[in-house]
Order: sequence, then C-alpha cells, then structure tokens
Amino acid sequence: MSSSYGENIRLTIFGQSHSPAIGVTIEGIPAGESIDRESLQQFLNRRAPGQNAWSTARKEADRPLFVSGLKENVTCGTPLTALIENKDTRSKDYENLRHLPRPGHADYTAAVKYGGHQDYAGGGHFSGRLTAPLCIAGGICKQLLEREGITVISRIAQIGRICDWGPLNASTAEKDFPVVDDEKGVQMRESIAAARAEGDSLGGIVECAVLGLPAGLGDPMFDGMENRIARIVFGIPAVKGLEFGAGFTLATLRGSEANDGFAVENGTVVTTTNRCGGILGGITDGMPLRFRVAFKPTPSISKEQRSVDLDTMEEMLLQIEGRHDPCIVPRAVPVVEAAAAIAVYDALLQRRKEVR
Amino acid sequence: MSSSYGENIRLTIFGQSHSPAIGVTIEGIPAGESIDRESLQQFLNRRAPGQNAWSTARKEADRPLFVSGLKENVTCGTPLTALIENKDTRSKDYENLRHLPRPGHADYTAAVKYGGHQDYAGGGHFSGRLTAPLCIAGGICKQLLEREGITVISRIAQIGRICDWGPLNASTAEKDFPVVDDEKGVQMRESIAAARAEGDSLGGIVECAVLGLPAGLGDPMFDGMENRIARIVFGIPAVKGLEFGAGFTLATLRGSEANDGFAVENGTVVTTTNRCGGILGGITDGMPLRFRVAFKPTPSISKEQRSVDLDTMEEMLLQIEGRHDPCIVPRAVPVVEAAAAIAVYDALLQRRKEVR
Amino acid sequence: MSSSYGENIRLTIFGQSHSPAIGVTIEGIPAGESIDRESLQQFLNRRAPGQNAWSTARKEADRPLFVSGLKENVTCGTPLTALIENKDTRSKDYENLRHLPRPGHADYTAAVKYGGHQDYAGGGHFSGRLTAPLCIAGGICKQLLEREGITVISRIAQIGRICDWGPLNASTAEKDFPVVDDEKGVQMRESIAAARAEGDSLGGIVECAVLGLPAGLGDPMFDGMENRIARIVFGIPAVKGLEFGAGFTLATLRGSEANDGFAVENGTVVTTTNRCGGILGGITDGMPLRFRVAFKPTPSISKEQRSVDLDTMEEMLLQIEGRHDPCIVPRAVPVVEAAAAIAVYDALLQRRKEVR
Amino acid sequence: MSSSYGENIRLTIFGQSHSPAIGVTIEGIPAGESIDRESLQQFLNRRAPGQNAWSTARKEADRPLFVSGLKENVTCGTPLTALIENKDTRSKDYENLRHLPRPGHADYTAAVKYGGHQDYAGGGHFSGRLTAPLCIAGGICKQLLEREGITVISRIAQIGRICDWGPLNASTAEKDFPVVDDEKGVQMRESIAAARAEGDSLGGIVECAVLGLPAGLGDPMFDGMENRIARIVFGIPAVKGLEFGAGFTLATLRGSEANDGFAVENGTVVTTTNRCGGILGGITDGMPLRFRVAFKPTPSISKEQRSVDLDTMEEMLLQIEGRHDPCIVPRAVPVVEAAAAIAVYDALLQRRKEVR
Repeated sequence: MSSSYGENIRLTIFGQSHSPAIGVTIEGIPAGESIDRESLQQFLNRRAPGQNAWSTARKEADRPLFVSGLKENVTCGTPLTALIENKDTRSKDYENLRHLPRPGHADYTAAVKYGGHQDYAGGGHFSGRLTAPLCIAGGICKQLLEREGITVISRIAQIGRICDWGPLNASTAEKDFPVVDDEKGVQMRESIAAARAEGDSLGGIVECAVLGLPAGLGDPMFDGMENRIARIVFGIPAVKGLEFGAGFTLATLRGSEANDGFAVENGTVVTTTNRCGGILGGITDGMPLRFRVAFKPTPSISKEQRSVDLDTMEEMLLQIEGRHDPCIVPRAVPVVEAAAAIAVYDALLQRRKEVR
Repeated sequence: MSSSYGENIRLTIFGQSHSPAIGVTIEGIPAGESIDRESLQQFLNRRAPGQNAWSTARKEADRPLFVSGLKENVTCGTPLTALIENKDTRSKDYENLRHLPRPGHADYTAAVKYGGHQDYAGGGHFSGRLTAPLCIAGGICKQLLEREGITVISRIAQIGRICDWGPLNASTAEKDFPVVDDEKGVQMRESIAAARAEGDSLGGIVECAVLGLPAGLGDPMFDGMENRIARIVFGIPAVKGLEFGAGFTLATLRGSEANDGFAVENGTVVTTTNRCGGILGGITDGMPLRFRVAFKPTPSISKEQRSVDLDTMEEMLLQIEGRHDPCIVPRAVPVVEAAAAIAVYDALLQRRKEVR
Repeated sequence: MSSSYGENIRLTIFGQSHSPAIGVTIEGIPAGESIDRESLQQFLNRRAPGQNAWSTARKEADRPLFVSGLKENVTCGTPLTALIENKDTRSKDYENLRHLPRPGHADYTAAVKYGGHQDYAGGGHFSGRLTAPLCIAGGICKQLLEREGITVISRIAQIGRICDWGPLNASTAEKDFPVVDDEKGVQMRESIAAARAEGDSLGGIVECAVLGLPAGLGDPMFDGMENRIARIVFGIPAVKGLEFGAGFTLATLRGSEANDGFAVENGTVVTTTNRCGGILGGITDGMPLRFRVAFKPTPSISKEQRSVDLDTMEEMLLQIEGRHDPCIVPRAVPVVEAAAAIAVYDALLQRRKEVR
Repeated sequence: MSSSYGENIRLTIFGQSHSPAIGVTIEGIPAGESIDRESLQQFLNRRAPGQNAWSTARKEADRPLFVSGLKENVTCGTPLTALIENKDTRSKDYENLRHLPRPGHADYTAAVKYGGHQDYAGGGHFSGRLTAPLCIAGGICKQLLEREGITVISRIAQIGRICDWGPLNASTAEKDFPVVDDEKGVQMRESIAAARAEGDSLGGIVECAVLGLPAGLGDPMFDGMENRIARIVFGIPAVKGLEFGAGFTLATLRGSEANDGFAVENGTVVTTTNRCGGILGGITDGMPLRFRVAFKPTPSISKEQRSVDLDTMEEMLLQIEGRHDPCIVPRAVPVVEAAAAIAVYDALLQRRKEVR
C-alpha cells in the first residue's frame, strides 16, 4: 500500500493538505515503550513552518493528538494513531489551480491517476505538510533507537551551488541551521533570500548518518539497508536522488580506492575508510551508515510558467500565488532523519527474529 | 521478505553461487501470457559471463528450466518457477576466504548476520550470479510490457572517468557495447583492460529509460515510481547511487530552471523538458521515465588488501585469486533493464485495480 | 500486521475501548466512489448498542468523523480515515480487574503478551467496541459491492439451543431480528432474557450469504475465498468456528451426496445444489457464497467465576459488574456482513488485475 | 499472493500436478538450524500415497531435492527451495476432462478464472499433490518447534459417520491409523472400503493439538492464532470447516459453561477447562491449542455425475476414471500438522520482536 511503510513496524500516513486532519497509524511498536512527548514536540518543531526567516510564513502548531496505542504515554502494544488538525488552510488560494496544473507538482499526474477526483487543495496527499506525520513516526523511532545507543543525525550539505564540505558530526546536527562551516550557512541563507526576492526557489542536498549501529542489520537483495532507506526517502516530496557512502563518486574510483579495508579496533572489526557508507551486501558493517539525498527546488515559484488547462487543453501561462518556501531543504533535514530512523528501527526489529 | 519483490506480481529469488541451482518464483502473472523463450534467452545472454573480451572467463549457460507455471509456454496463472543449474563452480577457490572477509564484499557482514552459517562459497546469495534469475523475471516482464507498447532500454553512461554524454535512444540500447559515442566506448574498454592488467577494477553508471508509459502509473508516498524502482535497483549488487531525471543536478538548479513546463502535443499533455525523469509525485507523467544507477568498482581485485581473520581477530593481508570481472557495468546493463521492467510491470497491474 | 486486513484494499483498525477515539484507516479504495453517509449510518446503527431490549444499556452514537480520503463524500484515492470518539466510558468499572483476569476474555493473554502494559480498561483493543470501525469499512465495501450487483446478507441461525432452520433470503436479512421463523425469534429473545436474569449469557450462530457474485473470484491455496473470509471473520471477538456451505456436515456425507452437479441455466453454468457454499478450489462458482459463524457466549457474566490474582498468584473468585450484552449474536449480524463485504471487495479488486 | 503464507517466515508453493516439478520456497528461517533429513522424510511418508490399503495405488516417492538455502543440511539464512519431481503422471487420464468439469473440483472455477489457460491435468495447482511441498515446509517447522519444546499432534476424529470420541494424545498421534479407539479405526477403514467398492467416497474430521506452547503467542484481530491457522488450513484442498476448542458446540452453551476458569498449577496460571482451545483474544493462554478441521468427501468418484461441456454448453453425464483416494482424511492428518506447525512457528518468530 502506497502510503504505508515497514515490515516489522508499519506506519500508514493519511490526510490531505486541507482535510480535517492529517495523521499516522503505527503498528508493531512493542508494548512498554514510553514516549517522551516533549522531546517529540521539539523534534516536530524543527520541521514546522514559520519557525524562522528562511521558510514560509504559515504558522501551524504541529501538535499531535494521540487517539490510540498509548496508556499514560507508554505504548500498550496496539496500533498507535496520532492526528494533527488542519487549521490554517486557505483553500481559496488553490481553487483556480483545479484545471491548471503547476509545473513540478503532482497536480497533473494526480488528475490523471484519480480521474479528476483528487483533492487538489494545497497539493492534497502530495503536500509537504504530510511530512509532519512522518516526523511523528520518525521522532518516536528516534527515541526508541536512542535507547539502544543508536543516533540519527543530519545536516545541510548543499543549497543551490553552495556546498558545505566538512564532515557531519553530532554537534553540527544540533545547530539551528545545521552546517559544519557557518560561513557557508550564511551564504546559503543569502542565496535563499535572493531566490525568494526573484520569485524563484532553490534545491539542495541533505546528508544523514546513523551512529552506533551494530553490524548485521539489514537483509540481502531487496531489503538491504539501501533498499529500506530508499523506499522511504523517495517518499519525501521533492527527493530525486540518493547515494550511500561515496555514492556516485564510487563510479569514478578504482576498486583499490573504493574498497574499505578491514582492521581491528578495540577488539572489533572496523573498516579503515567508509566509502561504502557502512553497508556491505545490504547489511550494516558497524561503521556509521551514511547517505545523501538530493532535493529538487521547491516547484512553487511566483515566476510565470507554462501550463495547460486540462478542461480545454489550451496552453496557458500560470502564475502561482500564496505562501511558499523558497527552499525546503532546511525543513527537510529532520524529515530525512525521521525517514532514516523508521527504516533503521524496522530493520532492528527484523534482526531480533534471527537471534534466539 | 528480503529476497522478494513486488506487490502485484511477487518474485522470490533463491539460490547461492554454489548451491545446486539458483532460480526465481514469480507469482501474479495473469494467465494466458505466452513466453517467447528464444527472445528471453537472448536477453539472458546479454548478462551471461564469458560473452566477450571484457568480462570474466567463466562460461555459464544461463538456460532456465521452467518447472511450474507454464502450459506449453503460456502462463497458466499459478506460480512460475524457473531454475538455472550451477555447474561450473570451483568452491575450492573460496575455501581460504572463510575467515578472511574480502573488502567491499558482503563476506564480513554476512558472517555477522548469519552467525557463521552463511554460505560463503562464491559470495553465496550475495553473488552477482543471482542477477541471472532477476533477469529471467525481468526478461518476462519486458515481453509483457512490450505487448502494451512499453519499452525498457538502457546504456552505459560512464565507466571510471570516461563519460558518454549523448542521449539514450533505442538504437544505442541495441549495441553490443551500448554507448552513444562509440569512440567513448573504445576508451571505456581500454580503461577496463588497463584496470585488469593492474589487478584492479572499475565502476560506472548505467542509464535506463522506459518509453511508451501512460501517465498515471505509480502511487503517492512510498510506492511512487522512484520508490518502486529504488527498492529493486538497490538489490543489484554494487549499486550505491540512484537518481531520477536530472537527479543530483537538480540540487544546483533554481525552480524556474528545474520545473518542466506543460504543453500540448498531438492532443496530449507533455512537458517541454524532462528534468523530473517522467515522474511527478511518484506518478508517471507520460514522458520517458529516466534514471541513472551508480555502480561501485568490482570489489574482487587481485591487489593486496587489508583484512582481518575473523577466527583469530588478527589483521592480515589478503590477495584474491580466481576469475573476476574487472568491471561489471557492461553486464549490469540488462540487469538494470530487468529491474526496471519488473517495477514498471508491477505498477501497471496496480493501475488496473483503479480503473473500472 | 495484526490489526490490518487486505491485499488490495488494506484497512487498519486502531483504538482501545477507552482511548480518546477508535477508528479505521482504509487504503486502496479507488478514487471517485461516492459514500452514502446516511446509508452507512443506518448500517452502523444495526451494530450499535442500546438499540433494543436484548442488548446492553450503554448508548454510544457511533458517528464516524472522516478526517481524510474524501472530497465532498467522494473518495479521492488516498487513505480514508474515520474516527469514532469514545465518550461514555466508565474506566472505574474495570480498575479492580487489572490483576484479576476475566475468564473467557483476553485479559490474561494480553497481560502476558504486553508484559503488563496492555490497556485493560474495557478490554482495550480486544473490546467488541472495535467492531464499530470494522463496520465503517464494511459498510463502505457493501456500498461499493452493491454498485456491482453484489449483495451481502445475513441472519441469526441459532441462539443457544434455539435453531432457525429456514433458508436465508434478502427479506429475512432486513428484519430487526433477522430470523426466517419469527416464532423462533421470540423463543431466542426469551432465552436471552432468561440468561440475563440468571446473570448468564448465550452464544449462537450467524449465517451469511453473498449474492450476485461472478464466478472466478478468489485465488488458489491461501487466498481462496474461504481463507480470505476466515482471516477476517476470526478477527471478530468471540468467533470460534466457521464453515462454508454444508461445512461440518460434509464430513458425514458421501461424495455422491456432497458434490454439486453442474447444469445450465439461462446460458450460464450453475450447480444443481450448493453444498460447497459457492466456492470450489477457493474460487467462486457463481452460486451464492454461504458460510456460518459460531459465536461463543459473551464471556462477561455476573455469576461468580474462578480467577487468579496475577500479582499474588492467588486463586480468587471473581464477580463481574457493569453493563454487558447477555448475547452479542444479534449485534454480530452486521459485523459478519461487514467482514464478508471487505473480504469480497478485496477479492474483486484482485480479480481486476487478471483481466486485461 | 495466493500461494504464499506467512509474515515472518514466508513460504511459496509452486507447481502443478503434472508440471516438471512441484516445490516450495521458504524465506525467513534463521541461519544455523540443522534439518534432520531422515526425520523429514518419515514425516513426508505419512502423507505420501500408496503407503497402505486405504489410499490410492499411485506410488510417488516424495523425495525433496534442496536446491538452495542449506549448507550441509544447516540453514544458511537465505531462501530455502526444495523440489519434488513429478514422475508418475498420466496426463492422458485427464485429457477428456478439459471441457467437462468434475463436480466438487476446481475444474470449472479455474477455467473461468484463468480464461481457459489453466493447467487442468491432474487438477493442476489445485491438486492434493501440492500438499507435499506444504509438508516439506511444515515438517521443517515441526523440527524447529520441537527444539523449543513445542509438539504438534493430530488424529482422525471422524470418517463419514464413524466418530472417535477419545481425547487426542501423543501416543494416538503416533499410530499408523491415528484414532484413540482402534475399534472405531477398524470401522472407519471398513466404511472407506465400502465407499470405494461403490465408486463413492467419504469425508471426515481431523483434530489437531499443539502442546508446549508458551502463553502470549498470536496477535489481536486479524493475526490471532485462529486467523493464522485458518488462513493456512483452508488452503488444504477439501477443507470446508474449522473450529477451535469446543467450536460450534460453544454456540449452544451458556457463558457459565463455556468460560474456562483460571487456576494456578506449579506456579503457573492454567485454565481448569479448555473450551476456548487454548486461545483467548487470538493469543495463546499456555494450554493446549486445539482445533478441528472438516474435510468434504473426495470429489473424484466413479459414480456418474452431472456436468456441462464448457465448449458447447451442453449438459452431460460424466464418469471419472483413474486412481483416486476414496477418503483423503488419513493422508490429510500430517498435512493438518504441517499447516499448524507453519502457523505456530511464524507466530513464534513474531513474538521474538516483542521482547527485548
């Protein structure tokens, strides 16, 4: 099912941008896990709009209401459902877009797929707003992983043409604008401001790492850690590329440069480099799991664009109004973390079945 | 399940490099589809080793034996199982590697995951040999798609540092060494020969396109075409990166450059460019679906490498003997096609449920 | 996942008896299907308590709130979530039962499974109240089936030792107390009243039929119509037996008595009898699909029963207070219909994939 | 997928009665489990035909060939595939049945479902022969369960009108003709012989028990132990009814008679009776899990029956020739055990995920 993810936990995300509520149902979290609501809220706030100067002005309090699955904030073993009410919605902004699909959005493809019955307001189920319930699930999984000594961190690696090359570490991940080189961060925000001023938008790259993983997580072939992460990460709107470890750069290296040699450290097998991103044959090798995610620029721009009236099949020029992020990459950082946490926690439960 | 793929058809790949046989079971192919065995064999031959100068010298006739699911080469609606016997196996080559994991391979991670019970000979279930049954399934799906006017083509886009920039088209895909610019092809083969001479290996990039797709295939969130393709493509050994349309390049563009405007052609909505790779919101837009796959260099090299004896935990130097592809990219081309064909055919069956 | 059902539609039921809400998420309903809310409410009312003299006195308005998946009461193709708020809950009634499991209930097994973290109030996720969201999903499926000419009907076949032998038909199914022989219905209600007066309870049998089914629905082996219906019907609390067609009676017949001969009627193949319940090899044969479901007596009785204090491991006598149905069979009738409708609609979507 | 079962292990059964081979692929068995091949063969022999006087005269050595998943008879963690070659097949026997469906068989429904492309020879994928690979998977699961102290036993409870009322225990299960009261066994075999002599057939009931189960296995709603067992048991050809514990009899009891009181025995909670069949709320309570399965009479009888020529739509009389079991119940006994073992082992792996 397309809005569901996971084999050992299974989450289903529901809601449209302007439906009464959006939310998530999560099955399979073992009973007895306490959920730190405050810490979860802080995580959700990292994704919420209107938090700062470089994102949209809409203010939505992403406050989840847990309607099932908890007993005094402790999981009781049955499906956990959390809702976020949709309050600040201006459906009017979208009414004129019903027949006029926005380039780069799912408007046209949804119209074809759903035979005109799609909920077009605000992008419907395709809206970036639906990453909020993903973050509820991911924020919970992050807490569960931390109890096992596993941390998920991420940062902005690139916005437009500005790259931050320094190595990702925990202290970077804690920053408001998570880059290693803060000077680069200033340049990134300037380029976002410039794009906004011109009615345009920017894309970028988010890098994510999972630290503290044991070796042996993940499965061969289609449930390797790459496959598991890919299936969820490409579910984040605007993601168009994904690479693990040195990724596309590996295509240019020789085997003698690309292979990570084995060594022993503190009685444990380690690799001397980590070009494979901590994954061999789909299975973790105990080194940090690393991957990078390419986001296309926000498709909502106020510049005039070519479109087609789907009723009359006339070519038209379209100008989008409304409030939009000129660059979603900063807000996407916790979303990528959420996705990674869910994928890793699911693999962790899978692993439990293998060991008596 | 890790060695299974698909929601509407489901294939399960079984076998180890040196087990009596490898094979695939495919459920869900509708009854009444004839399988062109000769055309399937030609497709399998494109992947088979020993076909040419730039791949391994092993000769394996990848001749599938269909033990179920067919009645006189026509599907009868029940699970289709095909086997390929393993004949030319020299398990001795691998005996000394039992405790000495090869860098870049799954030897170490499999040893951890399976607690020492893994079938290490020839890489076991992680061997590239297991792409043969994937190609059986994919070759069948290719035939089924062609009956609906859908073609899957692919080519070598890069080997090591040699890039072939020309646009992929059907005539390129038919070449023995599928590149647009044959001069580049010569250079690629020279660089492979050079790497082999030095006991080293090369990686590269395969580009794939699916032509003739209707708009409306694929589903939101986790079953988008990107997710579906990603889940299977990362199941091909050595794949470390995947991008759709302009992929990672999109991160550097502005929205006004990245968005594909809509226009009308022959009464149909088209996009004026195709930077999204034919996918918006996970759903096909009717333009060619395009993606690129990064392969790391073959990890089996004869150069000395660092390893660890897993029994004694002593650091060791390892030199791999045996017959290995210095570059698997040429043989990977049909494998990527097979993966794409399976993903697309599965989405096509999904689509049938939506339309009364 | 345990609280989920279906391959082509998938519903997930969430909530506990006393959580803020209960509800259901349904994925996979094609876009463009209008939901008749009034007709759905009437269906839900058949299950709701407090409707009549022979069921519990609790009054719960089972009014679903649709928070996603609809646009003006028409499905928009994405997950449909409906909630029912829990209002009339008296958790106090259950507090003293925390360590003292009620015989015949899931109290003890849930305590073991969830390590003491189960939500015990009102039976938690195991409560019969969770059949309300099942009826939301089933009521919707009933409407979708009716558009294809398929009707699901059911009746009370037995309560305690009173059997209603007449054949099930549509007019019986419409009765308030759906029995063929109303005199038997009077006796059944008398026996329920008698059991209630003695602080005891009764079980019974519900018979269900699906009319208007095409031949060819259902799949071999584990997705036969029997398997599909069984998996959902045994999810209804208190169900302990299930038989199709002549069911257990078939064990006593000879093949010549049990086989349904084929004949032609109005140009269509029919069977001259229907002892197989309309299913051969898991696949519908075009005759009415018939099955019978055995319900055990409501386990909540006010008679004194043996239990064990799980904290002290002391044997105790337990007397249950509170408001309970002396016989849930009448209210179970629409629940069985709902389950059947879901199973059949899921099979119907599956069938669409097979026919080009 | 219809020929697949299981969430934590997943088995897929393939093959037709007269295809080159039949077999099973099993995913998810943890690595390091040794398979006792001899003991497995003995289990398979219990199902094989031609073992005794009361079954068909065909002789098929059901000798599985393991082509993957084992390394020296120890599971290596990847998919395990076993084949049984089809040797003694007389397709000619069935040729005249192509258009003339046998009453009680899947011939007609398969013809409709597969649009005439079904493999009709010998019943194709619907043949009882396909219970052989089910027994391979089940025989392996039985061994795995025995290592955890869990035993699956079963017996003949009824054949035609002859009932064996005594309680099932381990010594009964070991008999060649597993009934408690051997005198009843004699009568059963006499009634089978009588039916055979008259060209007719008999059905019956198999009772199964799982001993040594811990409390806490199974899940709420649709993955309860009843649901799990039902989904696989109804996949055995000819099964038309299933009841747990006192089953249909519970419909006639009062709650005070049906509820199993709790008590303490050797420091453990037990129930004083076991009318629920060891399952409450879908979860095991630590008492023996008990269920009964109703088989219809073998549909293949040599008496003349009514059929319809599907080509001409003419009503015809049909007389079936060939070798057929007059009663499959004795051979079904190990098949029911196999099904139960698979369901229970799958639930056991599920349970491991819940306990840290």
